[in-house]
Amino acid sequence: MNPNEKHLTADAVAGSGLLHRRALLGRGLAFAGAVGTGAGFSTGAAAEALTEPDWSLVPGDAMPPYQMPSPFEKSVVRLIDNPRSDPVISHARTPHHLLNGIITPNGLHFNVNHGGVPAIDPSQHKLLVHGLVKRPLVFTVEAVLRYPIVSRINFLECGGNSTPLFSNEPVQGTVQQIHGFASCSDWAGVPLAALLDEAGVDPKATWFVAEGADAPHLTRSVPLSKAFDDAIIALYQNGERLMPGNGYPMRLFLPGWEGNMNIKYLRRIKLTEGPALTYHEAHTYTDPLPDGKSFQFYFIQEVKSFITNPSPGMGLKAPGYVEISGVAYSGTGRIAKVMVSADGGASWGEAALQEPTLPKAFTRFRMPWHWSGGPAVLQSRAWDEAGNVQPTRAEFIALRGQTTSPATWPQFPSHHYNAVASWAVSTNGEVRNVYA
Amino acid sequence: MNPNEKHLTADAVAGSGLLHRRALLGRGLAFAGAVGTGAGFSTGAAAEALTEPDWSLVPGDAMPPYQMPSPFEKSVVRLIDNPRSDPVISHARTPHHLLNGIITPNGLHFNVNHGGVPAIDPSQHKLLVHGLVKRPLVFTVEAVLRYPIVSRINFLECGGNSTPLFSNEPVQGTVQQIHGFASCSDWAGVPLAALLDEAGVDPKATWFVAEGADAPHLTRSVPLSKAFDDAIIALYQNGERLMPGNGYPMRLFLPGWEGNMNIKYLRRIKLTEGPALTYHEAHTYTDPLPDGKSFQFYFIQEVKSFITNPSPGMGLKAPGYVEISGVAYSGTGRIAKVMVSADGGASWGEAALQEPTLPKAFTRFRMPWHWSGGPAVLQSRAWDEAGNVQPTRAEFIALRGQTTSPATWPQFPSHHYNAVASWAVSTNGEVRNVYA
Repeated sequence: MNPNEKHLTADAVAGSGLLHRRALLGRGLAFAGAVGTGAGFSTGAAAEALTEPDWSLVPGDAMPPYQMPSPFEKSVVRLIDNPRSDPVISHARTPHHLLNGIITPNGLHFNVNHGGVPAIDPSQHKLLVHGLVKRPLVFTVEAVLRYPIVSRINFLECGGNSTPLFSNEPVQGTVQQIHGFASCSDWAGVPLAALLDEAGVDPKATWFVAEGADAPHLTRSVPLSKAFDDAIIALYQNGERLMPGNGYPMRLFLPGWEGNMNIKYLRRIKLTEGPALTYHEAHTYTDPLPDGKSFQFYFIQEVKSFITNPSPGMGLKAPGYVEISGVAYSGTGRIAKVMVSADGGASWGEAALQEPTLPKAFTRFRMPWHWSGGPAVLQSRAWDEAGNVQPTRAEFIALRGQTTSPATWPQFPSHHYNAVASWAVSTNGEVRNVYA
Repeated sequence: MNPNEKHLTADAVAGSGLLHRRALLGRGLAFAGAVGTGAGFSTGAAAEALTEPDWSLVPGDAMPPYQMPSPFEKSVVRLIDNPRSDPVISHARTPHHLLNGIITPNGLHFNVNHGGVPAIDPSQHKLLVHGLVKRPLVFTVEAVLRYPIVSRINFLECGGNSTPLFSNEPVQGTVQQIHGFASCSDWAGVPLAALLDEAGVDPKATWFVAEGADAPHLTRSVPLSKAFDDAIIALYQNGERLMPGNGYPMRLFLPGWEGNMNIKYLRRIKLTEGPALTYHEAHTYTDPLPDGKSFQFYFIQEVKSFITNPSPGMGLKAPGYVEISGVAYSGTGRIAKVMVSADGGASWGEAALQEPTLPKAFTRFRMPWHWSGGPAVLQSRAWDEAGNVQPTRAEFIALRGQTTSPATWPQFPSHHYNAVASWAVSTNGEVRNVYA
């Protein structure tokens, strides 16, 4: 055992090489090339590092008014399943395996659209507030923007995120393919409560129905209490106006609740005495349960986590130190704890949570690991501040069911999958989706 | 006085119409168009709001792999002063007047580059750590990425931000032109301490010198203590890899310290016994002081705030409710308090601080205001958690000096301007930069 191995072993907290989250790393990881052995300055590799490549010999490019990633990052893009915009649903998935931190850049935020991305002229867009109100009102974008604005860093997750994991056999895919329908941004907009106060709520109202302005007029029912809790009419995403795929010029934003309910291109809020039982809530976002009942009107995206590094397609090159990293989030509030296992759940160590840990937002967790080069199964499990815990897959499918693979729609459950996910690392460093 | 006026007046906390930060707004602001007078549903404007414009009658566009803002937002761009990349310095300024929240989207982050934007191939880029170390090391991008990563939401501000306000006469410009060299992102990277531990620090080292790989090889000296405090080698910005204008593939990031020291395209860290007195620290970023001495090696971007809405070019259309909003930040830590005045500093009210208030990050402040339609002078003043307070302009120029306008470079102070700024609102709603 070399000194490096000894150092790492001393910090072990769980099986298969998991290290204490506060292990002192950076000493003896030895990923750099040494260019000298004493305090003196060597030649060779050091001199080579200071040679002048093309970019240090010529003036650089002009600054663009709106800057874009380097051409060398051209593979860091969303996965698009309907690139010609055929008249079916379109999906764009976030490449979690290539990202870090807690903010999803706007270019890479996920999208699920039922009729493509509409090109809405904001000067022509209107929001109608009507139904059980004292005075129906119509708001232009400019009118909405005159109300007090709030902003919050919140995740947004499609109810259909992680659906491949309902399959009874582990489907192979990247973390982008499996978990790519969740992203996290700084959202700014006007509290829906301010607009409802302006309209005057009829005491008989207990729900509202929100409708989008794009061709499918996607419509969902929301309990009125959410409007007076934290719902906003969002107009900004990470500082700038909403992206066209995220609802430009305005969308409903319901922190922590099912993505599909956060109606994009919002044109109508109608206050009602009950839910409207629209197509997307009575059919698409309703799942059969093993006991013959239906899983419907569930709203909250429950506590969840997944590992982004390492992950399928981003395998390990050599034994030694590896930072296990991922995101955790809960529609209920803050993440309180994330535990990580490298032996398929036999033993667990507590991950470091990157500050800030914000309510209903991605929390980045990190766990140092010394990979021996042997097989391992990596898992993460999150707890939120309300005490909710991410279920194991066995617990989850007992309640919610699973499907044969490939499953036949619509007779299978496909929404709100939040169970512990597992990546198997093989001796060659390859990473695969497994059930463990 | 109508009921609206009465409601607003009841919440007054300071002169010229400033309202309590927790004033209950949204009732009676009346920016929407009423479409009925009873609880019933009206026709007319309401029906019009539900007509079907073009975008609700046709399928939308395909989702792009990397999404971009709406064409209707094409004026939300950085201000570029060297669009042909002539061989002089280039600047790109953040359009604060068009943004909200605390995150600056990557497309709109400010840039100051001394030799254009280099096109660096990350597979060829190397970082040399040498000088007073036990063993000099060369790191590839891939090697750096194997170390433990940290991420933090931090502002970055050029030492030359707000320079126009050194002028003895108030220069007219937008908040983008005057304060556009500050932005805030979620930065992720490897603690510099981890790489220095790996190299082994010689006890004689007290500073390090950082050098960029682009043609100007911009070089700055940094006290070594910052490396063991919170300095990182940043590789990610708001989740994705650094923008080319922000240092791709890696940069030094020194939370809270002068932008120019956060060396982009970082290719070298040399540990030394003292500062190198490079061109940019001995000349460009050294200011003459009124007492004949020099303002040099000041590092921290001190506590500061400015109002983004309303602001020059974004004037007021009509008397009534207005949300005064802006950003505050301190290189020392968290923002503790922001006070706002609407009467040029004669009286003040405390602004609401949008959570989260993070250390060394933008904090969004908001202050409700009832504009009577008369002349007003808006100011904001920030305090940080260490008790530092943003100076008045009079206090600031007594210490740091001012210039005649137009000033002749280099005989004038031009860096680290952080005094209280003032916008005058005239009776026609126009907003101008003034000294008050």
